[in-house]
Amino acid sequence: MSSTNTYPQDEKSKAKRYAKRVTYDKDAVRNIVDAAPILHVSFNAPPTEDTEPQFPTILPMLGTTADDGHTIYLHGSSAARLLRLGAGQEAELPVCIAATILDGYVLALTPFNHSCNYRSAVVFGYATKVVDADEMMLALKIITDHLVADRWTNSRTPPTKSELTATGILRVQIDTASVKVRNGGPHDDKKDLKDEATTSRVWTGVVPVRQILGEPVANPENKVEQVPASVKSWIEDTNNMRKDHMTESMKE
Amino acid sequence: MSSTNTYPQDEKSKAKRYAKRVTYDKDAVRNIVDAAPILHVSFNAPPTEDTEPQFPTILPMLGTTADDGHTIYLHGSSAARLLRLGAGQEAELPVCIAATILDGYVLALTPFNHSCNYRSAVVFGYATKVVDADEMMLALKIITDHLVADRWTNSRTPPTKSELTATGILRVQIDTASVKVRNGGPHDDKKDLKDEATTSRVWTGVVPVRQILGEPVANPENKVEQVPASVKSWIEDTNNMRKDHMTESMKE
Repeated sequence: MSSTNTYPQDEKSKAKRYAKRVTYDKDAVRNIVDAAPILHVSFNAPPTEDTEPQFPTILPMLGTTADDGHTIYLHGSSAARLLRLGAGQEAELPVCIAATILDGYVLALTPFNHSCNYRSAVVFGYATKVVDADEMMLALKIITDHLVADRWTNSRTPPTKSELTATGILRVQIDTASVKVRNGGPHDDKKDLKDEATTSRVWTGVVPVRQILGEPVANPENKVEQVPASVKSWIEDTNNMRKDHMTESMKE
Repeated sequence: MSSTNTYPQDEKSKAKRYAKRVTYDKDAVRNIVDAAPILHVSFNAPPTEDTEPQFPTILPMLGTTADDGHTIYLHGSSAARLLRLGAGQEAELPVCIAATILDGYVLALTPFNHSCNYRSAVVFGYATKVVDADEMMLALKIITDHLVADRWTNSRTPPTKSELTATGILRVQIDTASVKVRNGGPHDDKKDLKDEATTSRVWTGVVPVRQILGEPVANPENKVEQVPASVKSWIEDTNNMRKDHMTESMKE
């Protein structure tokens, strides 16, 4: 596992269960982080005077990976707290980022053997606030185009100075990361499979799940008559990709 | 805010930004926790000998609220670590649970004013392992029926003793919680709205997002010829509810 294409395993990233479903492959991590519409970012606020036990905090955030394969950029509009921490500290802020995509409900003969098909990446890294103007512009562009394909060129850019000042971007340097995937149908126990009273009445299989983008609804202030090709193709491409993955996830 | 229908605000749950989008209403929290297909649970592993800074961990888990309004039950199949911590400690384990549902992409004139419509609940609570047999059975039933409506009676129940032993359930006692919701269209700046070069070429509006359940695919070992009414109506009801919410989220 010393290849540069995999992340190192350590105490926090090592699989604790179902090790055969787990990989540390960098491309696999990147694919899941970038396929998840929302990233969940967890961190510890600095200890306060009161003595209550330490709660981590989770914030849902938007973000995407950079081409270097070891950086995630997070958009901070809803993360003022995290950004304040990241900006104020000399040390970088340790964060955990979870990217999870549900692909299906797996219906078995017994509640015990029910499951879900999913893709899950859990990333550990160090967050710092981006301050360099060029890096900020690059990060904003890739986050925007990740959110809505080609939106940077199809909206009013570049951002003004005051827009840039009001935006917060976190750079997360990936330390370790792992991926867990479940595909396919239920795995029932032999005893239940032989029990005709059960098999004759309990349907088993997979109900696939996917997120779809619906029909665009124009803003009252919108002046562009037709939904532009760039928006239409972003919706179509996203929906097609998710449909393809849904079919893929049914296979063992 | 001392009403019993709201959670107390404290340092960790208090809104830091966009306070008008935030509530502490117990029903609002419950609705979002139970509408989110996956919950993200964050906790701190006990400190080890090495001196690296403390990373919280996030695990994606399945779970649902209990009727008392201050309990969330989490299913532990993928959470061996968390359960070991919860079981081994005298003190309860502080956790943060995030429930997030993406409802739409909000396309504005500028990248800066792009946004997402979403429902987000962030819950802080104390997790302990359920050991009482009656509570375990109740929690398993409500988690199963939450995952797939009426599945408890429509599968082989009750669980066997060895199934119960192999299952882990965490009870999370809610301490504080908050909800943040964004609905409606983009809010562009006056300067951009007056700039015809921009408004004539940049489409603005909302692209709604929802998760759908697809056509059920039977397991090769399945013996029930037709997809049963209980599975069909679960799929239909879920999809209708999500479609209704999508329409709702377009309104300001």
